[in-house]
Parts: sequence; structure tokens; C-alpha cells
Amino acid sequence: MKDMLDVKTEHKYTEVAERIESLIEKKLLKVGDKLLSVRALSKEQGISLSTAFQAYYFLESKGLIEARPQSGYYVKYSREHTLDIPQVCEPSDDAVPVSVDDMINSVYRDLNAKGITNFSLATPSIKLLPTAKLNKAALQAIRESPTSCLNYENVQGNADLRKQIARQAFNWGGTPSEDDIVVTAGAVEALSLCMKAVTKPGDTVAIETPTYYAIFQVMESHGLKVVEIPTDPLLGIDIDYLEQAIPRFDIKACLFVNNFNNPLGSCMPDDLKKKLVDMLAKKEIPLIEDDIYGELYFGKTRPKTCKSFDKKGLVLHCASFSKSLAPGYRIGWTIPGKFKERVIRLKRMHSVSTNTLTQAAVANFLSNGRYELHLRHLRKALHTQSLRYLQAVSEYFPDDTRVTRPQGGFTLWIEMNKKINAFKLHKRALKHNIGIAPGQIFSTQGRFENCFRLSYGAPWDEKIEEGIKTLGRLVRDWK
Amino acid sequence: MKDMLDVKTEHKYTEVAERIESLIEKKLLKVGDKLLSVRALSKEQGISLSTAFQAYYFLESKGLIEARPQSGYYVKYSREHTLDIPQVCEPSDDAVPVSVDDMINSVYRDLNAKGITNFSLATPSIKLLPTAKLNKAALQAIRESPTSCLNYENVQGNADLRKQIARQAFNWGGTPSEDDIVVTAGAVEALSLCMKAVTKPGDTVAIETPTYYAIFQVMESHGLKVVEIPTDPLLGIDIDYLEQAIPRFDIKACLFVNNFNNPLGSCMPDDLKKKLVDMLAKKEIPLIEDDIYGELYFGKTRPKTCKSFDKKGLVLHCASFSKSLAPGYRIGWTIPGKFKERVIRLKRMHSVSTNTLTQAAVANFLSNGRYELHLRHLRKALHTQSLRYLQAVSEYFPDDTRVTRPQGGFTLWIEMNKKINAFKLHKRALKHNIGIAPGQIFSTQGRFENCFRLSYGAPWDEKIEEGIKTLGRLVRDWK
Repeated sequence: MKDMLDVKTEHKYTEVAERIESLIEKKLLKVGDKLLSVRALSKEQGISLSTAFQAYYFLESKGLIEARPQSGYYVKYSREHTLDIPQVCEPSDDAVPVSVDDMINSVYRDLNAKGITNFSLATPSIKLLPTAKLNKAALQAIRESPTSCLNYENVQGNADLRKQIARQAFNWGGTPSEDDIVVTAGAVEALSLCMKAVTKPGDTVAIETPTYYAIFQVMESHGLKVVEIPTDPLLGIDIDYLEQAIPRFDIKACLFVNNFNNPLGSCMPDDLKKKLVDMLAKKEIPLIEDDIYGELYFGKTRPKTCKSFDKKGLVLHCASFSKSLAPGYRIGWTIPGKFKERVIRLKRMHSVSTNTLTQAAVANFLSNGRYELHLRHLRKALHTQSLRYLQAVSEYFPDDTRVTRPQGGFTLWIEMNKKINAFKLHKRALKHNIGIAPGQIFSTQGRFENCFRLSYGAPWDEKIEEGIKTLGRLVRDWK
Repeated sequence: MKDMLDVKTEHKYTEVAERIESLIEKKLLKVGDKLLSVRALSKEQGISLSTAFQAYYFLESKGLIEARPQSGYYVKYSREHTLDIPQVCEPSDDAVPVSVDDMINSVYRDLNAKGITNFSLATPSIKLLPTAKLNKAALQAIRESPTSCLNYENVQGNADLRKQIARQAFNWGGTPSEDDIVVTAGAVEALSLCMKAVTKPGDTVAIETPTYYAIFQVMESHGLKVVEIPTDPLLGIDIDYLEQAIPRFDIKACLFVNNFNNPLGSCMPDDLKKKLVDMLAKKEIPLIEDDIYGELYFGKTRPKTCKSFDKKGLVLHCASFSKSLAPGYRIGWTIPGKFKERVIRLKRMHSVSTNTLTQAAVANFLSNGRYELHLRHLRKALHTQSLRYLQAVSEYFPDDTRVTRPQGGFTLWIEMNKKINAFKLHKRALKHNIGIAPGQIFSTQGRFENCFRLSYGAPWDEKIEEGIKTLGRLVRDWK
């Protein structure tokens, strides 16, 4: 929609909008307060009418203000009015072998079933992806390849793509060369190869809690045990707890999603990342960093990565284009530091090389400088959606519900009254054609029974609102 | 070239050519014998001049006859004149843990290096692939997909593609439904998932010897031990030996390439396949069948698969389009019998789902009925190439060299004088810009030191001939 928006204009209206937003946050403007008219705002701020209108439009799309017909703009929502944030969960006392539940199969059996309002997938709606431009990139890739992309690609990956990934790393404070990067079939393959490269069966690995169930599955398939480290919904894992747990459980490696952890949405502050990396470096413990959500930040700057503080080559950075560009293209990568040769060898063993065509398509898309522009739009859309969804949860769920305030990524984590069983809620919701991800699948220990993950990857519409309303009703009427 | 060739004409000239070929094989026509002129052949057989010419052209392309300027056609080559077939190697007495060598990295480091005459890859030359039609299929796939192939595909794979694979199975005597099939990122992923589904670390698995090195790597990465079963260059593994080995080594699963085994090119007769499947069924031992070369037969009919004799769901059939259509598309599949659910679960764990775009492209290509026609041309080309290469080896290598007579697939297996070290030959050949796959990488036990694999995937030309000539010279002048 705003593809061609002038950057200077964009800056102006965002700046005005942000100042109004901060007034609302500080309760200097309260719910129900009438705002200046567009004309008055334009005069007061010395901005054009259209900029003033854009500022209000932006705040409206975030669900912070509303236009009342024949009357003007009013403050609709203040963050202070919403539900509490979930609590850090208690640490557990044992390292347990992973046993992944049939629940996952129940939740993800009919991923693509039609007519379902699916809140269970932490992925962007296809509507938010640059379809036409990607198609063009795919066609160009075929045309420009001397073999029409039919031959095996180099095991380590398409050289142009690795160059583009190396450039992109500048955003998070990284300075890898193309030769440090290994392309994989999505981030899950990257995690799996890295995990295999730094552990042997029977080893114990530290992870966050709650954790994305696919990470448990990777662990299980490599015969690993896990220790769940308490994770703050805002700040990420408890580093001091981890430091004590390392000798206690003989932890051999860590796997963390520091930026917009799935499902909590927590983002570890950069200085804590440095502390974490330094602590692990002293103990020579490899850290697998899953950074698939890092580019999807709502704040002013991209959070750094642990990799950017890595001096010893002990951080294995993993990411993909599946959350931001093209899930079905299956293109991810890893920057595995000193484990690179081992990872390449495993890659050759398990899948020979990554898809030649979609690697070339993504390389083409990135080299045309289209990715940055797309990311800017995607971040804005997700931010808006997160606020809309959050507001709806506040409106339709009981007051004893707690909910996270993600600053990036795709997911809200909702903690309900203890009496609610989320897996049962999933079953009941399914009868109303609504899909959610129940909390139980985010732990190996049957925790989070009264929690669930709600993805806001799909643009807001009436069907979504109806879905959240129905979920709220199911919870209110719980028996 | 002959895309539009009328099927009836094709039949006629092939039929005449085959009769001449059989005269040569029975020594009724000997090397140096003059053949009828094209005109005389046409009269004698009651065929058109052009059909007679095509028959000779075909025999010439196979290297069986030659045109001498101003003189006519002469028998050039008789199979009886060539080198001996390699011997079955001795069985070993121990199950050993797999330890894959750095040699593999040395051989495959510079896969795509320019200027190299590469005999080390068992893949078709890009010149033999239907590039333009595949590109068209990819474009159509993008156009016809409501999401431009950007979304995750179903874990089990594209439904249209699975339908096409099910139809194709008719050729090998299979009757799977689309629901029995799981699409994977190439055959290597299929093998890896199947192996994981039927074993646990520490188990012992039976394989052929020599065996494609990637199979050892899959074993190694799953922590398995292997027993190498003696394999006849014509008939495949020794089933009686296997039967005794099962209790002796506590074998938990088998992995065989029964059709045109890589590197031997052996093809187990169908009745032996049945015997193998029945014997394993009695012992409840799963058989992973790697059938990637099955479609590339030179004879009249496609060899059957073990899967076609499987009554208990114990055969896990694996194959791909990498050897016949598009290596870089990374599309393979498995029909895992009763292990299907386990394989799907592992697929979800390790790579979520297979590339959406290239799955749809292959489905489109197959549903247009283009695959059969393409395969017919590919088989013919490979058959011709196999004979040309074989002839060159017979010509340029010393008389104590032994060489296989593959009836399908891509590779010759060459056994040289015991004094020759194939890995050293690889090193020396590399200095002449020639790549071969030394025998050592096809065993876990350092066997086949004096053997190497020569792929005939590339169409015959002077550079190829020069390459084989140089290899022959290096062997003749061995010090």
C-alpha cells in the first residue's frame, strides 16, 4: 500500500504519532479523551494536513485511538489498562529425557485445512509477503543460471546468497564473510546440524522454558537430555541460574532464542547477551543461537545477537528466511564458528545440498535491495497486529488472564486461570474451527497446562476478532 | 533431438538394430566384418532407406559399428573382446563401527570446479535433462499456486506430486496410493529418515560391498554399525550369506541398492528379490530399498523392486528425481510401509516440509506426461554412453584390468592390477584435471584400493576420450 511512501514524510508522521503514543502511555491522555482535530494538530505541529492524518491513521491501526463519526479522534486504549504479564516459571530439579507428546500431532495435523482460523502457526500470513517480487526473482534466477538451477548446488550453499547473508549480518553487529556461512533447508535443519555437531547422544543441553516444541523434537531425535532454564517474559533466560546449572547437570551445550523467543516474545537486552556469551566462553560451552525472529523487531533498532559478542567461535548462529520472506522456499543458514567444517560434513551426509532454485531466487531478491524495504513494512504490520490482538484478548478474556507484551516476532503467550486446561481448550476451539497451540507442547514436563500461544501473523479482520471472542467465551464459560 | 520421432518408426529401426546387435554378440558378425550397405539393408529388410540409416546410426552411436569413408559400415566392437568382470569380494569377519575417511572430502571438495573432466559424479549431464520443459513447469507451478508456492507444503508432501509418484510406481509393479508416500529433500534424506525410523544407535545394519560412500555417512551419523555383504557384479548381494549373517551379527535392518547398485551396476534378478523379501519377512527385518537408478535400465523392461514383493509393510522404498530429472530440485520420496507415521514425524522434526516450489514444478512436469518420453531418451543416451566408455576403457587400460557391464545407471567399476592405489591415482589424475572416485571410499574397511568408479553421465566427446586415455596411461606407467 505505502510502497512508494517518501521516507522523509514517513519519518514525520511516525515521529508525531510516537509522541502522542507516549502521552497515552504516561496517562497524560486517557481512554476516552478527545484528541485535537486533524486541522488543529496540523497547525499546532507545523505539519501538513496529510501528515497529521497519517499520524492518526497510524495510531488507529495500532488500536490506540479511534475515529468517531461526526466527532473526531478519541483515545481508545491504554497499555496500563491491560492484563498482567505472565510469571517466570519455577525451575525444575531434574534433567529429564525428552518425550514429545502426541499432542503436537493433534495440534498440527491439519495445518492447511480450509475454513479454519489458525492461531497456532508462528508464521507470517501470505498477504504480508512480497509475492510478485519473489516470483520475479525466481524467474530471473532460472534465466540467469547456466543450468536453469537444475544442478546440485555447492554443499555450503549458493555463493551470492552467502554474500547477501553476510551483508545482512551488518544489522545485528556481525561481520561474517561469505565463507563463514552454511546454507540449510530452513532454520530447523540448521539447528539440527549444529546440535549434532556439538553434542553426542546422552548429553544434556540447556534450553529456555517455555520452548518451541520443534526444538524438543530436534533434541529427542539426537538422543539428548534437556534442562529447562527459567525464562523471564521480558528479559530472557536467567543467566545466573544457568551458570549454576552448568556444573550441576553437566550441561554440554545451550540452545536459546534470545531475540523474541517463541512463545514468550522475550528479548534479552544486549548487555545481558554479552554477559551470557562471556560466561559460556569461560566454560568453553557452545551456544546455538536461534535468531529466526531477530529481524522482526518493533522498536527503533534491531537487537544484537550473541554471535556479535563471540570471540572464540563458540556461538553457532542460526536463522532463516521462513519467517520473513518465503516459508515454502526452505532456505535457512548457520554461521557455526569453529564448528563449520563439522557442520558442512553433516550437511553433506543428510541432504547433500540445499535446493538450487530457491537459493538463487532469494539471492536475486536480496541483491536487488528489496529485502530491507519489505522488512520495514512487515515489522510495522506485525507491530500493529500485535497490538490489535493484545487489545482483543484484553477485551474478551477474563481479568485474571495474563498476557505477554512482545516487542517483536509473531506470538502472544497467554496464561489463564489454573483451572483451564489448554489442551482441552484446543480441542473445544477446534469444534469452532479455531486452532491454537496449547501450552503443554512447549515443555517436556507437562507444564503450562493453563497457557497457550496465540500467533498474530494474520492481518486483523472480523474473522480474527470473532475467533478471539469465541476463545474468550470458551474460557469464561469453562466447566 | 529426436523428440518428435514417430513411435512406429522408432520401433522399426530399433528392432532391426537389435537383430544386428545380436548377430555381433553371437559372433556371427565379427570385428572388422563389413555390413550390408544402407541401400541393401533397406531392400533386404523391406524398410525405408531412412529407417535403415537410423538403424546403423543407432548401432554406431553405441560404438558397435563404424562408418568408414567411401567404404561403408563395419563391425567395430564385440562385447566378448573386452576386459574381465571384477570378482566378488571376500566377506569380512567383523561388524565394525563406520569411520568415514577424509578421502571423501578430498574427492568431492571441488565438485563444480571449472575445466575439470569429472568422472566422479554418478549424475546425468545437464545436457541430458529436459531443461526448457522443466523451466516451463516451474513457471506454471508458480502461476497456478494460490500462494505462489511461498507457504509451507504439507509435511507429507504435495498431493499432486504424490499422485504422480503413485502412478509411476506402476512401472515397477507397485500399487501404492498417494497416502503411502512421503516426499523428501532428495533420496539421501529419505534414506536417513527411514534408517532412523527402523534402528537405534549401536544397531547393526547390512549393506552391499562396495557401497556408495554417502550410505556409510548416513550410518555413521546415526551411530550404526555395518556388516558388508558380498555383492556379485551381476546378481547383487549373496542372499544365503546374508541369511547366516543376520543371527551372527544381530542385524536389525538392511539397506540395499538392488537395481543398478552404485558403484557395481549389479541388478538383482526379480526372483531373487522375492526370495530376499520373503527371507527378511520371516525374520521381521526391515529392508530399506534405495531405488534411485531403477528407472535408468538399458534392457527391455524396468526391473521390479523389492517393494513389489512386500506383504508385511517391511520394505521402505526410497527414490528420487535427482538422477533422472533435476538434481538441484532436491525432490525424493519414500514409501515406508508400516513405518510411515514414524517417518512423517521424523520429517517434521528435521526439515518441517520439503521445498514447495520444486515439488509443484515436478508435479506439473509429470502430470503433463513428459516424464516417460524424457526417460526413454535418457535411457538410450546412457546406454550408448556406457558402451562408449566401456570400449574406451578396454582400449586404453592394461589387459589385466577388469570392468563391470552395467545394465542401467551411471557407473563403471574398474578393478586394476593390485599394485595400483586408486587414491593415489585420483591425486595424480587431478593434476591432469581429471576427477575419479577411488575405490577406498566405497568401503569402511579400506578395501578396493585397486578399484575406482568411472561415471559415464556425460555425453561422449573428445575431452572425455582424452580423459580416459590419460587415466589409462597413468595406470600403464604406474610406479
